[in-house]
Amino acid sequence: MGRLSRNIAVSKFSLVDAPAPHVERRADAVAVEEPLEVRIGGEVVASTMRTPGHDIEWLHGYLFAEGLIRSASDIAEARYCAGSTADGVNTYNVLEVDLRPGVRAPGLEHIRIRPGTSACGVCGSSSMYAVLNRVPAKLCPPPLSAEQIAAMPQILRKQQKLFRRTGGVHAAGIFNAQGELELLREDVGRHNAADKVIGALLMDDALPAKDKVLVMSSRASFELVQKAALAGIPALVAVSAATSLAVDLARASGMILAGFVRDDRLNLYAGELDCSAP
Amino acid sequence: MGRLSRNIAVSKFSLVDAPAPHVERRADAVAVEEPLEVRIGGEVVASTMRTPGHDIEWLHGYLFAEGLIRSASDIAEARYCAGSTADGVNTYNVLEVDLRPGVRAPGLEHIRIRPGTSACGVCGSSSMYAVLNRVPAKLCPPPLSAEQIAAMPQILRKQQKLFRRTGGVHAAGIFNAQGELELLREDVGRHNAADKVIGALLMDDALPAKDKVLVMSSRASFELVQKAALAGIPALVAVSAATSLAVDLARASGMILAGFVRDDRLNLYAGELDCSAP
Repeated sequence: MGRLSRNIAVSKFSLVDAPAPHVERRADAVAVEEPLEVRIGGEVVASTMRTPGHDIEWLHGYLFAEGLIRSASDIAEARYCAGSTADGVNTYNVLEVDLRPGVRAPGLEHIRIRPGTSACGVCGSSSMYAVLNRVPAKLCPPPLSAEQIAAMPQILRKQQKLFRRTGGVHAAGIFNAQGELELLREDVGRHNAADKVIGALLMDDALPAKDKVLVMSSRASFELVQKAALAGIPALVAVSAATSLAVDLARASGMILAGFVRDDRLNLYAGELDCSAP
Repeated sequence: MGRLSRNIAVSKFSLVDAPAPHVERRADAVAVEEPLEVRIGGEVVASTMRTPGHDIEWLHGYLFAEGLIRSASDIAEARYCAGSTADGVNTYNVLEVDLRPGVRAPGLEHIRIRPGTSACGVCGSSSMYAVLNRVPAKLCPPPLSAEQIAAMPQILRKQQKLFRRTGGVHAAGIFNAQGELELLREDVGRHNAADKVIGALLMDDALPAKDKVLVMSSRASFELVQKAALAGIPALVAVSAATSLAVDLARASGMILAGFVRDDRLNLYAGELDCSAP
């Protein structure tokens, strides 16, 4: 797995045999978290803390969600900067992007600097109100049954290889309306994972993804609903809770939003499920 | 609880009685997520998606972590802007800050705009390398036993009232070296929760908090270790995983970092535990 996880020495304490805890010193895998900086025309426009891998997909998804690009062809070239460190070693942590000539990405002029974290979703718009006002077009979800939705996180979990090794990453999955997993990405940041799958769809010219479902191993925050909606994805399924603003935006955009989705139950916060669906 | 949680209509599907799922429509509490924008001298310098409440503490913690202030007295005044919406209603989502005359907060000149999300920690430094390079002074943790550390998340959980209502928020707790909980804040964003408790310490002139422990209901990312270290807090206890960079920084700064802390076990990623401690 290379840079996705790293083995480090860990002291594992077991307190079952009290009073003296049992300590075992051994190697354990942790998820790799590294910064990724994006430069357009030499100017830093974004940075995030992410798990390396699928960086170009992330770039597409992130810039799309930010409204900086509308299609993959808006990016003329994206490359890792050589010699990013003082001693000239390429860290693969800086991406230099050339936009297609003529593309004057909306919003770029408002952006000076917008670093983010492994957990950072919508950093970068010129004000929070601009972010809140970017409500997407009305969505029309395909028929989905409660059984189909409840099965999705289980299917996702079986493919979360990095999570199984580290217990420290989130996953985003794209499912089709038949309930089949089509794409999965893992990352220490849930927003990064979402940007990676949406970026992959964009690179495949598959947006808007009108009959897909975004499944997240995490909670459903406002920004995840917004990323899905902007990509035309009409359904978001989350393993954990939804926030108030996530529910508001899902309802306003006609999206299906399900939370606390477990094997035998789920909460439907927005949209309707199709009782006749398989 | 007012604006901390909101009751909304939810359809609860139970799939136990297959083939037909049981659906119950009822009110359920979700955690409130709202934007908070910070302006200094009229200029937007930060925004985050947060759970309302303890906003002034958050402000102090956030600006401190960003290096914009060094003490509470660096903030001359902080107030909610009146009439933040088009119809003049105060949303309590915009904070106008006046710095003390003469305070030229380091880094402020580099900041143009840096919105964040509910999950956003260190948005705002002028580059990711500036963030990475802000390694704090060497820390010296107090003696802590595995039993003390293992008990902390349990103690925290009992006081997580908003989590109990919504299942959708993280908590940050400040414990003393005797293992007692002294302060707890909850927020949809884990970094916000950390900023709130650290901000409260700053307002109480209690930084550096050399004999305190920061306990997080979440994973331990790089930014959380950094926030703790910058506040002089020499120990971070997390319920879930630690990332590679979190481990690196904790080791470099002499911090105790424990992850996957459950009732009967924990992983020690950095530092040493005191076997003679109670």
